[in-house]
Amino acid sequence: MNVKPDPQRTIRELKELRSLTGDDDGAQRIAFTDVWATARKWYRGLTEGLPVEVTTDAAGNVWTTLHGESPRALLIGGHIDSVPNGGWLDGCLNVLAGLEVLRRIASQYDGKPPVTVRVVDWADEEGARFGKSLFGSSACSGNLDMEEARGLVDKDGIALPDAIAEHGIEFDRVLDSGTELKNAAAYLELHIEQGPVLLDLDLPLGAVLGTFGVERHAITFRGQAAHSGSTPMDRRRDAFLAAARMSPEIYQIAARSKGGVCTIGSCTTKPGIVTSVVEECRITLDQRHLDGDALARMYAEAREASERFAREGNVEVSWERLWHIPPRPFDPELIDLCDEAIRETCGTSHRLPSGPLHDAAEVAAAGVPTVMMFVQSLHGISHNKIEDTKEEHIAQSVVALDKLADKAIGWILKQAARS
Amino acid sequence: MNVKPDPQRTIRELKELRSLTGDDDGAQRIAFTDVWATARKWYRGLTEGLPVEVTTDAAGNVWTTLHGESPRALLIGGHIDSVPNGGWLDGCLNVLAGLEVLRRIASQYDGKPPVTVRVVDWADEEGARFGKSLFGSSACSGNLDMEEARGLVDKDGIALPDAIAEHGIEFDRVLDSGTELKNAAAYLELHIEQGPVLLDLDLPLGAVLGTFGVERHAITFRGQAAHSGSTPMDRRRDAFLAAARMSPEIYQIAARSKGGVCTIGSCTTKPGIVTSVVEECRITLDQRHLDGDALARMYAEAREASERFAREGNVEVSWERLWHIPPRPFDPELIDLCDEAIRETCGTSHRLPSGPLHDAAEVAAAGVPTVMMFVQSLHGISHNKIEDTKEEHIAQSVVALDKLADKAIGWILKQAARS
Repeated sequence: MNVKPDPQRTIRELKELRSLTGDDDGAQRIAFTDVWATARKWYRGLTEGLPVEVTTDAAGNVWTTLHGESPRALLIGGHIDSVPNGGWLDGCLNVLAGLEVLRRIASQYDGKPPVTVRVVDWADEEGARFGKSLFGSSACSGNLDMEEARGLVDKDGIALPDAIAEHGIEFDRVLDSGTELKNAAAYLELHIEQGPVLLDLDLPLGAVLGTFGVERHAITFRGQAAHSGSTPMDRRRDAFLAAARMSPEIYQIAARSKGGVCTIGSCTTKPGIVTSVVEECRITLDQRHLDGDALARMYAEAREASERFAREGNVEVSWERLWHIPPRPFDPELIDLCDEAIRETCGTSHRLPSGPLHDAAEVAAAGVPTVMMFVQSLHGISHNKIEDTKEEHIAQSVVALDKLADKAIGWILKQAARS
Repeated sequence: MNVKPDPQRTIRELKELRSLTGDDDGAQRIAFTDVWATARKWYRGLTEGLPVEVTTDAAGNVWTTLHGESPRALLIGGHIDSVPNGGWLDGCLNVLAGLEVLRRIASQYDGKPPVTVRVVDWADEEGARFGKSLFGSSACSGNLDMEEARGLVDKDGIALPDAIAEHGIEFDRVLDSGTELKNAAAYLELHIEQGPVLLDLDLPLGAVLGTFGVERHAITFRGQAAHSGSTPMDRRRDAFLAAARMSPEIYQIAARSKGGVCTIGSCTTKPGIVTSVVEECRITLDQRHLDGDALARMYAEAREASERFAREGNVEVSWERLWHIPPRPFDPELIDLCDEAIRETCGTSHRLPSGPLHDAAEVAAAGVPTVMMFVQSLHGISHNKIEDTKEEHIAQSVVALDKLADKAIGWILKQAARS
C-alpha cells in the first residue's frame, strides 16, 4: 500500500504535457481549441485504471471523482488551459499535483476514503480567447454574467456560445454546473505564485490568505489640442500632464493602503502627434487589496487625486468602471492547516495574499471553505514561456498539498461530526 | 491710378476659395491632390489681365512675377495648400494678400515698379500627405533631404516622387528651383498667428522675430512587464512612471528657459494592458526656442531629467532624434519696418517669435533677408475648421502688408545704392 505521493511522477507528467501541447514559444493550451482538447484527452488517459469516475459538467469542467464513505467532498482544483505562449506550470501543476494526491488517497484507502475526493479541471480559467477569465468556475459558482458571456467573440469573430458548442457545451445550460458544488466541503488549489514575494523571502511555499478585491477603471482626461510651437505653456490644457501626475500618486496611495497595489497599465493620447498638446489622454487603473474597506479608500483617493489634477490643469476628467470584484478571503481554519502542511514539508511558511485571480476565488464566493497554496516562481514571472519553478520546489509543493489534503479530510470529518 | 489695396476683395477671394475647395469639415487643399490643383488653377485665373508672368519652378512652386526696373526682387510668399479639414486662412491668406499687394504695385507703377515683385505659392508647406513639411521652400533653399524625401510614402503607399510626377514635377530636378532665389533681395510673409498671444494682448497684428529652433525626440523608457496583482510596488520597474515624471518636468524646463516651449505630444505603452506593469513607454518631446543656446540647454535638461527618472525607477532610457532645426532669426531692419507698418495701420505693434515653422524659415536659411507679419487668430487655434480671424483684422493685415511692401521696396533700393 503506497501511502506517499510520488512528486517525481508529477514532474515527469508536467514535462510530457509540455512536449505534447507546447512549442518553442511556450504552452499553447488555449481553452476551447484543439490543443486544449488534446491536453484533456491525455489527462483522461492518466486516470485510467484508477477507481474514479471522470465526468464533464454542463460548463465543460472535468471532474475526477473518487467516491468515499461520505458524499461530502474535498475538492482539489486547477486548470489545464493556458494563455498563448504560456508557462509550463500555470494551471496544470494544480491538476497534476491534485491527481497525484488522489492516487495516494485511493491507494491508502483501497479506493474508498472516508470522504469523497474530487479533482476538477476548470474550463477556461485564463480567458485568453474571449477576454473573460474564470469561465468554468464562475458558471459553477453562479457568478457568470450570461448576457455578457453570450456576446463575447474571439479575434476571428467566433462567438463564445459557438466555440464551446464545438466542445460539447451547450451555452444556455452552463449554470447547471452549479450542482457539482452541492456536497463540496472544502476546496484546495495549488498554484505558482506568479510574483516575486516567495522568491525574495527565499521560501518554497506560502499559504494564501485570499484573493485581492479589484477596482479596475479607465480614466479619461480631456483638455484642448493646441499647436506645440505657438501655445504658451500657461495657456495649455494638457490632458497628458494631468494623467501623468496620476502615476507617482498611485504609488503613494498604494503605500498608504498597507498591502494594496495600484497599476496604470496603459496610456493612449489623442491626437497623439508630436506637434500638438494632448487633447485626450486615457489611462487604465487597476487597484487591488485584500481588505474591502482599504480597497474602497484606495479608489476614493485615486478619484480625488484625478479631480484635483484635472482642476489644476484646467482639464476635465471622467471615470469608467471596467470591472470590479470584492476581496475573497479564504477560510481561516484551512489557512492554518495549509500553514502547518507547509511547515511540516519545508520548515518555514509565509502567509500572503493573491494578487492574481484564481478559480479558488469563485469557489470561495460560492460559500465553499477554500484555501490556496503558492509555490515560488523564479523571476517572479508568469504568462510567459520563461515562467519557471525549481523542480525541488515543485516536488515540495506536491508533498505539502498531499499533507494539506489529509488535514482537510480530517477537518471535514470533524466539521461533519460537529454539525 | 489705384494706389491703395482693396482688402475687401481679398476677403471675397478667400471666401470664394473656401467654397471651391472646402467642405463642411474645412479646407481640403492637401498638396499634390486634385483639390489642390483646382485651387491653383483658380488662383491663375485671378492673375489674368495683370502685367505679370506666372511660372512654375522645378519644385512645383508657382511664381507670379511683376518685372521691375531692377531684377532685384521683393518676394511675398504663402501656400495655397492646407491640412485635411483645415482652416480657411492658413497659407492662402498670405498668397491672396500678396496678390492684392502686387495688384496695387502694378497699378501704381503702371506695370513697371523700381524693383521686381514676385508672389510665390510654395508647394506643400503643410506636408499633410507625406508627413514632411516645407517641401517646396526647402527644395528652393537647398535644404531638402533628397534621400529622405525619395523614401516618403502616403497612407495609400504612393511614393512622393510618383505623386508629384502626376503634377508635372520631376523629383530628381526639384533642387533646380533654387535659381528662383538668385535675385531675391527681401522676403515677406503674412500668416495667421495660430496661437493666442495677439488675442490675449487684444492686438490685430505683430512683427515676427524669427522662427523657433526645434529639437524633436522620441524618448523610450524600458522596464519590465509584471502582473498588476502579484508584483509588490517596490519591485516594479515601471516604464510609465519614469515617462510620466517627464510631464511636470518639461513645464519647469520651459519656465527656466524664458520663452521656450516643450510638449509631450504622444505616449504609447507596451504591453499596454490593464493587468500588467508597463514594460515600454515611448513619448515624443518637442522643444522650441528662438535662442539656439537656450534650446540646447532645454534639451540637455530634459535629457538629464530622463536619466535621473530612469535611474530612480530602475528602468532604462534611450533617446532618438526625430528632427531638429536651428532657430531662424529674421532680419532686424525688416523687423523694424514691419513694426512701423503695423503701427501706421493700427496704432500698436508687438514683437513675438513664431512657434510654428513657415516657408519663411527656409527662405531666411537661404540667406534672403526675411520678415513675417502675424495677424490675430481667434481661439488661438489652427489646423482645424474652427480656425478664424476677424474680417476687420484680415483687412488690416492686407493694408499693413501693403505698407510693409512699400517700405521693403525702399529698403531694397537703399541697399542697392549702398552696395
